[in-house]
Amino acid sequence: MKRSKRPGEALRVALFAYPEVQALDLSGPLEMFARATRLLRDEGRTHPGYSLAVVGTRAGPIRSSSGFRFLPDTTFGALRGRIDTLLVLGGLGVNALLDDQAVLGWLRRMAGRVRRLGSVCTGTFLLAEAGLLDGRAVTTHWSRAAELARRYPRVRVEQDRIWVRDGNVYSSAGVSAGMDLALALIEEDLGAEVALAVARAMVVYLRRPGDQSQYSAPLRLQAAQTPSVRELVAWAAEHPAADLSVPALARRVGKSARHLTRV
Amino acid sequence: MKRSKRPGEALRVALFAYPEVQALDLSGPLEMFARATRLLRDEGRTHPGYSLAVVGTRAGPIRSSSGFRFLPDTTFGALRGRIDTLLVLGGLGVNALLDDQAVLGWLRRMAGRVRRLGSVCTGTFLLAEAGLLDGRAVTTHWSRAAELARRYPRVRVEQDRIWVRDGNVYSSAGVSAGMDLALALIEEDLGAEVALAVARAMVVYLRRPGDQSQYSAPLRLQAAQTPSVRELVAWAAEHPAADLSVPALARRVGKSARHLTRV
Repeated sequence: MKRSKRPGEALRVALFAYPEVQALDLSGPLEMFARATRLLRDEGRTHPGYSLAVVGTRAGPIRSSSGFRFLPDTTFGALRGRIDTLLVLGGLGVNALLDDQAVLGWLRRMAGRVRRLGSVCTGTFLLAEAGLLDGRAVTTHWSRAAELARRYPRVRVEQDRIWVRDGNVYSSAGVSAGMDLALALIEEDLGAEVALAVARAMVVYLRRPGDQSQYSAPLRLQAAQTPSVRELVAWAAEHPAADLSVPALARRVGKSARHLTRV
Repeated sequence: MKRSKRPGEALRVALFAYPEVQALDLSGPLEMFARATRLLRDEGRTHPGYSLAVVGTRAGPIRSSSGFRFLPDTTFGALRGRIDTLLVLGGLGVNALLDDQAVLGWLRRMAGRVRRLGSVCTGTFLLAEAGLLDGRAVTTHWSRAAELARRYPRVRVEQDRIWVRDGNVYSSAGVSAGMDLALALIEEDLGAEVALAVARAMVVYLRRPGDQSQYSAPLRLQAAQTPSVRELVAWAAEHPAADLSVPALARRVGKSARHLTRV
């Protein structure tokens, strides 16, 4: 694994964006890294945190898939200097880049120079097209996982993961999962305490482990309309230090074991 | 409650941003509304969804607190036409606006014209300063809830809520909680099915109810390092339709009731 970090130097994270990108793929991780940096500074830590660069396909405003317009800090053609972590974002516009040889060539060159390479959501398609995911385990947005596997048979698609690490290649599921990936990278770089502080500051509900199902479990739980189970989960989460004996849980959940069995 | 919606017209949502805004306060809700609109269109529904406007304090690029730069669609001085929902976003820059009479006056005028008025994170401070939250129950970022209550004693601060509705005034906790608020508004406008579809598309882990604790429960759970409880929660969530009897839960959680009691 290549280290592009010098002691005392901020870890430079490049986020690759383009027209019709999913803006939350970009701003979610970006804000996590920025908040980690601010936390370190506020606490007077010596680690300088992250230096962030939004890297566009071209200069000037970029229109995201929702119509939201933002400004890149530089373009992929003009990007110079060391990059620690390169993240390729997802969105409808990724399809238009799959035969862009300039972008694909740049990604291949960068892949050999960065410490970590990653994708958010459908950003996987671009890395796969560049041949950078061959033999790697990756995840992507659940709605396009089957297509990714079909199109790139040498890529090992694990379609129900929030994020996946395989060597120095990282990938995350759709949209908001990019924030989970960013937290995982922050934890790797700066420790669990800083990652947890970032999650708290951003009011991220739960730092989801990589092997968490993408959406099925918690959303299925809501759809299932099983208030007793929901109560159990909420109560156990609220009271980790409380009496979590089976009788206590039974009392909490459904007043009796019999009630619980009927759920 | 004023209705600014005509039949067949998109619900116009204005998101009020400014220099040093927390960019995720903006892009999170914005992307939720945009995705709801796209889902309706893809499914051929007659409801046109949302029309979104990023409203800045001035024209030209706005620099967020992380350095991320974006472009507003218009300015508060130039905003014309019906607005259905006005959301005031949070961020470090909110402090600089608390004595901006032009902004405060505009908010007061808008408050009488919109169907719904809301805030994300520390956006509450601006609405409170404008006198629009007197007697209302609201929430805000946990780190500034005490300050909000002290500074605006007529505002009823409920500091440990993800989002709060009081009449036509809505507020959310910090940063990512703005997405929960947006989902709640989408559910109100378009039904639970559409809101759930948006949550799935964005891979939002859990559509959190408004009375969910801001961060304490799930993050405390992680910090508590109690794998048994964590397993219980994860397993119960994964298997809402499975055997959730007390013996089955006991087996899952810690192999025995005794083990569970020791947690």
